[in-house]
Amino acid sequence: MTTVPTTTDLYTRVQHFQAAQMQVLDNGDFDAYSATFTEDGEFAHTPGRPAARTRKGIAEELHAYHHERFGSDPVRRRHWFNMLCVTPQPDGTIHATAYVLVVTSRPGVREPEIAPSCVVHDVLVEEDGQLLTRSRRVEHDYLSIG
Amino acid sequence: MTTVPTTTDLYTRVQHFQAAQMQVLDNGDFDAYSATFTEDGEFAHTPGRPAARTRKGIAEELHAYHHERFGSDPVRRRHWFNMLCVTPQPDGTIHATAYVLVVTSRPGVREPEIAPSCVVHDVLVEEDGQLLTRSRRVEHDYLSIG
Amino acid sequence: MTTVPTTTDLYTRVQHFQAAQMQVLDNGDFDAYSATFTEDGEFAHTPGRPAARTRKGIAEELHAYHHERFGSDPVRRRHWFNMLCVTPQPDGTIHATAYVLVVTSRPGVREPEIAPSCVVHDVLVEEDGQLLTRSRRVEHDYLSIG
Repeated sequence: MTTVPTTTDLYTRVQHFQAAQMQVLDNGDFDAYSATFTEDGEFAHTPGRPAARTRKGIAEELHAYHHERFGSDPVRRRHWFNMLCVTPQPDGTIHATAYVLVVTSRPGVREPEIAPSCVVHDVLVEEDGQLLTRSRRVEHDYLSIG
Repeated sequence: MTTVPTTTDLYTRVQHFQAAQMQVLDNGDFDAYSATFTEDGEFAHTPGRPAARTRKGIAEELHAYHHERFGSDPVRRRHWFNMLCVTPQPDGTIHATAYVLVVTSRPGVREPEIAPSCVVHDVLVEEDGQLLTRSRRVEHDYLSIG
Repeated sequence: MTTVPTTTDLYTRVQHFQAAQMQVLDNGDFDAYSATFTEDGEFAHTPGRPAARTRKGIAEELHAYHHERFGSDPVRRRHWFNMLCVTPQPDGTIHATAYVLVVTSRPGVREPEIAPSCVVHDVLVEEDGQLLTRSRRVEHDYLSIG
């Protein structure tokens, strides 16, 4: 596979982009989160669930998923990304792979649940000097071993 | 809110600053930790506990807190920061927000306790080319949901 | 101790290097992992176990250790590094210290084991513009408190 050398500048920008993106998601602002995708963006967050497409579709999917999964359960989720690898491609897109842990706190319970362990595969693009996610695919380790 | 664009250089400097600062804290060197604050620095580490003020006050608070909390319990604590967002302000200060997990090991017990999940809100300043913490406020997720 | 100022560029390069190195290890590619060491590299990963030496020796040690430790147990391990401190030395080597957690998933079990908490001490060198690990020593917190 031909790749383009990564600059440290790009590496840091991807770190910051993903951190801000996930802080927005964890604050429950699904519209702002979907705005970090390209207009035709694609987001496959859970195996067996079809990928959501377009900003509008991603925001709708997140509203539906959170309602279905947590209902009125007052959880606070924090997505931790780490061990980021960034690989610019000859076509101008940027491939980024990171480890993910989801940290879930509940009122009055000091010890959070930390699960599952995942790997996220992002395809990023730059539009008007701004990084955007064109596609994001999440693999869950406990479902993909073997 | 008006903000100033973040350079990737600043982002990396904040990462390194916080990493070194927390390695010092986790080594129990409370005087070196308090020296990473401005002389009039402020540190609110636990909800319901008044903020410590000034380098001297921060060092004293940490000695008192650790004695009270752990006594002769031989724990090794590691503060993990992640998902950093850095926002320079027009007044020259730097706002930094990060997720935090506290990892606590005990002799002979392989699995550490990982709790609580927090968010840290820092106001940083630059003095003589060196970053310093002017104020640090820590929110604990399990106490602030709802 | 005399040290050389760290550039943010070097800090980011070490982050990326360690992330790529550990993704390779976690994918079970022990030959590619050992190729991230210098030819005379040294790797002490577990207290009480002698350090492995040379690329060949490191690859052999990893094959032996994983067979012995996990056998046919289908685990997926993810090494998380964090809180990196980088200190270039006057002799041209680079000292890097980071916190480590090992995240281990098993098929069908959503919650991974997260243990132990470690600190890694690396000595890195640059050869032909490429970072390599000359030595890596891992301390396990639960075995080194007290």
